[in-house]
Amino acid sequence: MPDNGSSGILFVLSAPSGAGKSTVSREVLASLSNMKFSISHTTRTRRAGEIDGRDYHFVERQRFEAMVKGNEFLEWAEVFDQFYGTGVESTRAVLASGQDLLLDIDVQGARQVRAREAGCVSIMLLPPDFVTLESRLRGRGSETSSALSGRLTRARIEAEEYGSFDYLVVNKDLAGCVDDVLAIVRAEHRRTERTSNEAQSILATFPA
Amino acid sequence: MPDNGSSGILFVLSAPSGAGKSTVSREVLASLSNMKFSISHTTRTRRAGEIDGRDYHFVERQRFEAMVKGNEFLEWAEVFDQFYGTGVESTRAVLASGQDLLLDIDVQGARQVRAREAGCVSIMLLPPDFVTLESRLRGRGSETSSALSGRLTRARIEAEEYGSFDYLVVNKDLAGCVDDVLAIVRAEHRRTERTSNEAQSILATFPA
Repeated sequence: MPDNGSSGILFVLSAPSGAGKSTVSREVLASLSNMKFSISHTTRTRRAGEIDGRDYHFVERQRFEAMVKGNEFLEWAEVFDQFYGTGVESTRAVLASGQDLLLDIDVQGARQVRAREAGCVSIMLLPPDFVTLESRLRGRGSETSSALSGRLTRARIEAEEYGSFDYLVVNKDLAGCVDDVLAIVRAEHRRTERTSNEAQSILATFPA
Repeated sequence: MPDNGSSGILFVLSAPSGAGKSTVSREVLASLSNMKFSISHTTRTRRAGEIDGRDYHFVERQRFEAMVKGNEFLEWAEVFDQFYGTGVESTRAVLASGQDLLLDIDVQGARQVRAREAGCVSIMLLPPDFVTLESRLRGRGSETSSALSGRLTRARIEAEEYGSFDYLVVNKDLAGCVDDVLAIVRAEHRRTERTSNEAQSILATFPA
């Protein structure tokens, strides 16, 4: 989408599972009043406590498939027979309102978003080392050992894609990592191509 | 210069005179232990209180001219019959030691540095408006009105070059402007192309 200097910025945060992406996202969002969290569409059943429009946009499979055909997703994926996707329209509405948007998505989703939205800013989050990643995943205690093993194998493949992202942050200590992301957000707003309106307003105060 | 991820970053801060560049530089340097301030070479006479190697590298005109011929300056200029320049060798020594370097130079100097050092990060500092710039320059009270008028004319021409810089920061309130520069420095260190050593070390801890 064109950047006129007053629209928000689309930030994409990706990581291998176990790197701490959800925690980092939550802390970043808590610090930034001008950033919204992107709400995905999904076909999976709503769980207790989840609210439509807050946790997800819950949609029927038929509706989701129609949106895919209509090219209405920035990215989408099928996970365990259910569909998840990020709507183009809801994304653009947030950015057009001048607010930033944070997309917390996996590496494959990030690849789709980057291909479609050249103006997005992509950040890869990595754990400080494999042992930390493994112990975080084991700590969840919610998976069979074969599912865990699959995640660990995928984690390496995903981590290797770091070079396709604009930025790399490392979750060694949470506060430092969150500060890195906050600095990236602040700095991106100062990039010259995003400040042309502001610069032109300043220049207009100079005598000809 | 090649960026292996462990060398420092060359930051170039430029502004029309009166924008507050020296104050911003000083505050940024006071906040960052890993950033050095670049010391220029000059042919002008040392003033009381100035120390060779701290304030400037004071050199004879003949030596300066030999350095120009030897292509030993990142940028240089003649101002009121005296020469000023930024040495290539001293710059590279700081960066190779892993420290960042801040070059506080005018817009013409910044143009020369950008042409020669593609890996530098350039920041344009602008005043919030012309009236602020003018009153800061008048407040100095050290210039004739024709010198002031010349500076104001040049300020507009310089400000118009903002588009050639990577970042634009506006000196509306000093603290906010300094925080913008600090965020830019922090974010630039997280750019993927500067973190390949770090990423490779992390990947090396993953089982093959």
